[in-house]
Amino acid sequence: MIYPVILCGGSGTRLWPTSRRAYPKQFAELLGRESLFQATLKRLSGKDFAAPMVVTSDDFRFIATEQAGAIGLDDARFVVEPSARDTAAAILSAALMLADHEDAVMLVAPSDHVIADVPAFLTAVQTAAKAVEDTGALLTLGVTCDRPETGYGYLELASPPKDGAALPLTRFCEKPDAETAARMVASGKKLWNSGIFLFRVADVIAAFSKHAPDLMLPCQAAVDQGKEDLNFFRLDATAYEKIEPISFDFAIMEKAANSMTVPVSAGWSDLGSWDAIWRISEPDTDGVATHGSVTAFDCRDSYLRSEDDAIHLVGLGLNGIVAVAMRDAVLVADKARAQDAKNVVAVLRAAEVPQADHAPRFHRPWGWYETLCMDSRFQVKRIMVLPGGVLSLQSHVHRSEHWVVVAGTAEVTIGEKVQLVTENQGVYIPLGTVHRMANRGQLPMYLIEV
Amino acid sequence: MIYPVILCGGSGTRLWPTSRRAYPKQFAELLGRESLFQATLKRLSGKDFAAPMVVTSDDFRFIATEQAGAIGLDDARFVVEPSARDTAAAILSAALMLADHEDAVMLVAPSDHVIADVPAFLTAVQTAAKAVEDTGALLTLGVTCDRPETGYGYLELASPPKDGAALPLTRFCEKPDAETAARMVASGKKLWNSGIFLFRVADVIAAFSKHAPDLMLPCQAAVDQGKEDLNFFRLDATAYEKIEPISFDFAIMEKAANSMTVPVSAGWSDLGSWDAIWRISEPDTDGVATHGSVTAFDCRDSYLRSEDDAIHLVGLGLNGIVAVAMRDAVLVADKARAQDAKNVVAVLRAAEVPQADHAPRFHRPWGWYETLCMDSRFQVKRIMVLPGGVLSLQSHVHRSEHWVVVAGTAEVTIGEKVQLVTENQGVYIPLGTVHRMANRGQLPMYLIEV
Repeated sequence: MIYPVILCGGSGTRLWPTSRRAYPKQFAELLGRESLFQATLKRLSGKDFAAPMVVTSDDFRFIATEQAGAIGLDDARFVVEPSARDTAAAILSAALMLADHEDAVMLVAPSDHVIADVPAFLTAVQTAAKAVEDTGALLTLGVTCDRPETGYGYLELASPPKDGAALPLTRFCEKPDAETAARMVASGKKLWNSGIFLFRVADVIAAFSKHAPDLMLPCQAAVDQGKEDLNFFRLDATAYEKIEPISFDFAIMEKAANSMTVPVSAGWSDLGSWDAIWRISEPDTDGVATHGSVTAFDCRDSYLRSEDDAIHLVGLGLNGIVAVAMRDAVLVADKARAQDAKNVVAVLRAAEVPQADHAPRFHRPWGWYETLCMDSRFQVKRIMVLPGGVLSLQSHVHRSEHWVVVAGTAEVTIGEKVQLVTENQGVYIPLGTVHRMANRGQLPMYLIEV
Repeated sequence: MIYPVILCGGSGTRLWPTSRRAYPKQFAELLGRESLFQATLKRLSGKDFAAPMVVTSDDFRFIATEQAGAIGLDDARFVVEPSARDTAAAILSAALMLADHEDAVMLVAPSDHVIADVPAFLTAVQTAAKAVEDTGALLTLGVTCDRPETGYGYLELASPPKDGAALPLTRFCEKPDAETAARMVASGKKLWNSGIFLFRVADVIAAFSKHAPDLMLPCQAAVDQGKEDLNFFRLDATAYEKIEPISFDFAIMEKAANSMTVPVSAGWSDLGSWDAIWRISEPDTDGVATHGSVTAFDCRDSYLRSEDDAIHLVGLGLNGIVAVAMRDAVLVADKARAQDAKNVVAVLRAAEVPQADHAPRFHRPWGWYETLCMDSRFQVKRIMVLPGGVLSLQSHVHRSEHWVVVAGTAEVTIGEKVQLVTENQGVYIPLGTVHRMANRGQLPMYLIEV
């Protein structure tokens, strides 16, 4: 059995506007009808895998559980990091939580990558698991390079890689410039660093003791003093906050003597920017790839994406352009500059543009809401309440509310009175009245609030 | 007194998505807070002008009256063309309707042009009016060329133009190619054809009798058999449909011996494509012009426009791009290809993409509505009912409705019962019930329908 540990705390902005701090890339339906997080969970399920451990943040814990639930996964363990401390602390904490299985192999995977050829990936994982069991190595899956990519880190081997064989690693290389990248690919002894790791629990803990001993005490304390909270395990905030953020590559992999890799050609991408999405979206002979409700007219070498069936995106005479349309935000970029989207988000954030970080849909423990229409005198929202979801008791001094249930049944409390409001029924909450809503049913409940 | 005739029947698509068949350019707030139609009405008001005649279509008559009302213009005459028959028929019909004032000067103007320097324009109009009174000429205002524009027709003079003087016209020139345009501008004897005409009523009718006699009978019949309909004058459909569509330039101006022009430099543009909008929007030193909620990051020579405060449009590293974002449609185009937007709309129309022709807001005699949210089981609409507006009595077999009034007071009829529903009140229309809504108040009434 392999113990999957899925890192799900990132909040990348290089795929803005689809990926935002409040609803990052791993949760978006970037490719197909499931999120990258859901695809990662599915890929690491089945008879060879134990129930996964998902390391996520306070902000994302409800999105993560909702998405896991939506694909029928009910045995995942959710570990909440009280603050972001980079990958070394997340991986060590996970290892310490698995310390009862010290001989077990754990597999650490980001939640926001794509792997097109899952059987090839799983074959490589089996090879890797056997290698770490046999050797006690710390292993990184290496991806066969097919172009001089400057957006990835590289792994250096002593000799050219052979698919299906574990090999010792001689060096980790940072993201290169274009010239260095071309030389590395030409050398035939380089692989891309996938950021997917395999090792035995005891071996990685030993490596931390040796190469990053400062992390041991606070991580152990964060685990020991951590608390169950609903269905989450929350690492102790005081202990965790003492940790100096550092990546696992820097803290451990670059220092470990016994590092290995297994090369894999499995259609892997970290989807690190819109040009990576374009590449993986199988552009046509003109180099044009589209997603959603789009018309491309005399375009070349471009990626056109509409995130909403109600928005039709048209490209006319474009060359080397990325355009992404959402209900509240549109990005149009030079494709060669796609990596700079994160800088744009920093500018938007500084200018206090809400779209920098917020997404149109606000996720809450009980479900989500989105604004359909905002005016100086009124607002219209669409609200979804999960089965079992309960909104806290509240009253408003400056607004009254009209609710119309459009799917499911709401249990509505107004003052002392509790009533069931079913599909196609409305209810009025006068200004200043204490009220609450809950979904006691088995299916999501939707309502429109005016 | 000059009699303004404003042509307001066009439904251009070169400014898609802002301009659509259902809500064309002249009604959009392309520049500033009033529409081009409203600006045209204002420009042709005042002590020198009689009440304007607005020639429009069945589809636009309610938008036109609503927009005229919104700027406080209550003496305009609205003439409805039962079908589009190009400018010659529209101008002749208007002239025949003014036949009681046969010595009067009429000024014919499109409703979708911009004129930045209104005093300079009005001075030229006075010069032109005097010239046509003195000479009986048919006069076109000519615009001083400042670049070899291929998107305009040209007027040829016998000698170089002098501002403020009426001059004879020797020839009309079609839209040229780039080389011809450069030669024409260099000649110093060319002006752009503004499409704004002045002539005495009797003179233009005489010109039609001579050069386009086939138009005389059907236009006279369309006027004679036309009918008052609410506050519109509706030309007779049977007569009007017999007319062969032809432009006034082709039918009359190119044939008339006594044609003249007055040159004017008044910041005129026909706003015929997005690059014209870019030009008139005063691009910054990088050539970037923006409108609405937009961030331009390292862009050059581009026009970025958001039509909705709730949509933030970001340009990143763009060069020579036009991007226009609306709630239901986004255009991203090579600026040099902006003129081709009309071809794109034809493609969208052929593909039955609703955004080709429909706008998010549907205008009706009683006001407008827009869809806020569409689902398989429900829909949410925002509805505005004008003062005095009445929706027809109706009932729905497949839907019930919840109405919440958010501004104003609705008179709601459900079955036999009539009730007033005021701001912050809701009402339920059961499936199959006959119902109607009206606004008997003095201000627009807004409601949300679920």
